Amino acid sequence: MKIAVLPGDGIGPEIIAQARRVLDVLRQDGLPIEMEEAPLGGAGYDAYGVPYPEFTQKLCREADAVLLGAVGGPQYDKLDRPLRPERGLLAIRKDLNLFANLRPAILYPELANASTLKPEVVSGLDIMIVRELTGDIYFGQPRGIAVNELGEREAFNTMRYSESEIRRIAHVAFGIAMKRNKKLCSVDKANVLETTEFWKEIMIDVAREYPQVELSHMYVDNAAMQLVRNPKQFDVMVTGNIFGDILSDEASMLTGSIGMLPSASLDQNNKGLYEPSHGSAPDIAGKNLANPLATILSAAMMLRYTFNQEAAAVRVEDAVKKVLAQGYRTADIFEAGCEKVTCSG
Amino acid sequence: MKIAVLPGDGIGPEIIAQARRVLDVLRQDGLPIEMEEAPLGGAGYDAYGVPYPEFTQKLCREADAVLLGAVGGPQYDKLDRPLRPERGLLAIRKDLNLFANLRPAILYPELANASTLKPEVVSGLDIMIVRELTGDIYFGQPRGIAVNELGEREAFNTMRYSESEIRRIAHVAFGIAMKRNKKLCSVDKANVLETTEFWKEIMIDVAREYPQVELSHMYVDNAAMQLVRNPKQFDVMVTGNIFGDILSDEASMLTGSIGMLPSASLDQNNKGLYEPSHGSAPDIAGKNLANPLATILSAAMMLRYTFNQEAAAVRVEDAVKKVLAQGYRTADIFEAGCEKVTCSG
Ligand SMILES: CC(C)[C@H](C(=O)O)[C@@H](O)C(=O)O
Ligand SMILES: CC(C)[C@H](C(=O)O)[C@@H](O)C(=O)O
Repeated sequence: MKIAVLPGDGIGPEIIAQARRVLDVLRQDGLPIEMEEAPLGGAGYDAYGVPYPEFTQKLCREADAVLLGAVGGPQYDKLDRPLRPERGLLAIRKDLNLFANLRPAILYPELANASTLKPEVVSGLDIMIVRELTGDIYFGQPRGIAVNELGEREAFNTMRYSESEIRRIAHVAFGIAMKRNKKLCSVDKANVLETTEFWKEIMIDVAREYPQVELSHMYVDNAAMQLVRNPKQFDVMVTGNIFGDILSDEASMLTGSIGMLPSASLDQNNKGLYEPSHGSAPDIAGKNLANPLATILSAAMMLRYTFNQEAAAVRVEDAVKKVLAQGYRTADIFEAGCEKVTCSG
Repeated sequence: MKIAVLPGDGIGPEIIAQARRVLDVLRQDGLPIEMEEAPLGGAGYDAYGVPYPEFTQKLCREADAVLLGAVGGPQYDKLDRPLRPERGLLAIRKDLNLFANLRPAILYPELANASTLKPEVVSGLDIMIVRELTGDIYFGQPRGIAVNELGEREAFNTMRYSESEIRRIAHVAFGIAMKRNKKLCSVDKANVLETTEFWKEIMIDVAREYPQVELSHMYVDNAAMQLVRNPKQFDVMVTGNIFGDILSDEASMLTGSIGMLPSASLDQNNKGLYEPSHGSAPDIAGKNLANPLATILSAAMMLRYTFNQEAAAVRVEDAVKKVLAQGYRTADIFEAGCEKVTCSG
């Protein structure tokens, strides 16, 4: 079980250190875990002058899974576009072909108060968003800023999906729906965009191989509304890269505790990159204040999806639940009556 | 004051009839209002075989303002793409050059309970979203579904903005911010998309002409989160067509009463199309159940923005507030203790 560990920037090193402690315990109990670190994002730029250095690339290509903290920070804002931390993230996704991004939005009963939504609207919330991660307008060519035939500057990007790209993410989404409540909602803007009309057509075609799954379709604007109006109507949602970026962030905020939410980005063979859904939080970096649970839960997803170690994954998840039940809280999820703890304990 | 009235489909004719009653009162009190009707959307298809018939086009071009009900219905779902109702909406926007879509998200104190968000998060909410409406990936070329050089089918759309398109919507947004709390948040995805990097650059440039307005920038995924986390941080938001489609629907649902929210779509000279933010609600069409207030408030926006009749606009808005204060409610916003009324009264 070779794991490339990329602490990244901001609070990344702190939260990764805690996830490593959890994985160390599992190793002592017999799991053949090997971890090696490399820089990504701003840390990559600092060490090697680029956000996804060759050293990191080599380590990640050879590893079975990648555990990432977070990337980004204000000190890198002035860098040229190709050198910025988030470019490292986009590059590693593309390089490792991590096309399937799984982002659960789960409300932990102990943290129900943290949500800005009324308890009856979100209690028991458990949505899995499947976002395509290596296509769409994120990577589509042509793109750029240029002077047009009228002599005016204009900028453009290309939303683009091939049939095989849609097909493979559809299979991932239907597969996940099969293991859950067998309801899949595909989000598109088929009334306006041919790309998503095509997306919808392929979803319907793939659905024939999963007759037990109930497939529905929703326009992206309506989905953004329905997540606020009645989020519990959803089980699994599947959508493209840019709509998935927006909706998965909206969905995670419904829980009020984004510091708790993990994510997985998988390739065709379940090699994956695992990272918390939250960012690098430069404002609290180095202060031992960050919530490490999303990173620890990301490690649990890694055990489940890449290493097929369901028991170990559940053990980690149960430990997280126990810590919450015992009333321990980092500052981001603290409420009166609980005991405030730091990132390291 | 020549108004083209387009009832459209579904509940459109019912809600338009009520808005006409309000405008009739203002005419009797002296405003030189002339109204003429024409079909749009499914109604256009039924009457003339196309969603934006020439008859309608001529009437709308000659009018000073357009008042629209809503378009769309399941009976039109099987039509070819260019014949579908929403094509009529896209066509009239482009034809009349209605590039500035103003969508307020206001929480009426009397309807505070309708929101799925906690009262303290949304009480007093008053956001104005300025959405660019005739550019972006909605209209960008090239677009389509084709076989690529590898022999595989793929689909594509083009996000595209020219400098002048961004500049003119920026001026509208800054102008509106000047009349409100002078805070403007421009939403982009400048860390990934050149088009929105360019958008941000132009916003910053235009900001120099409005030194009193505080301009901020936010990534679209973060904006989708912040609308849930703390929507009252926003005063005016400005963004492109597709992000605006998603965020304005999300914002309107924060109020819990989308049946109350009007919208305006303006050209360079304040000619405008006014319509409720909600859809054609085919399920309740013809039952006299629909909430006409969003359409009536759209007529108020028309009086304000196109006809510069601030007093008449306020008179209509005050009448709506009075009706709410007196406890009259259509079914969509009904709660115990109120008196249930129909669309017509
Ligand atoms: C940092 C950014 C490039 C990235 C994305 O848009 O994919 C982030 O928002 C995410 O969702 O992982
Ligand atoms: C019906 C559809 C084409 C339209 C849009 O996407 O602009 C609608 O969602 C809106 O926001 O007015």
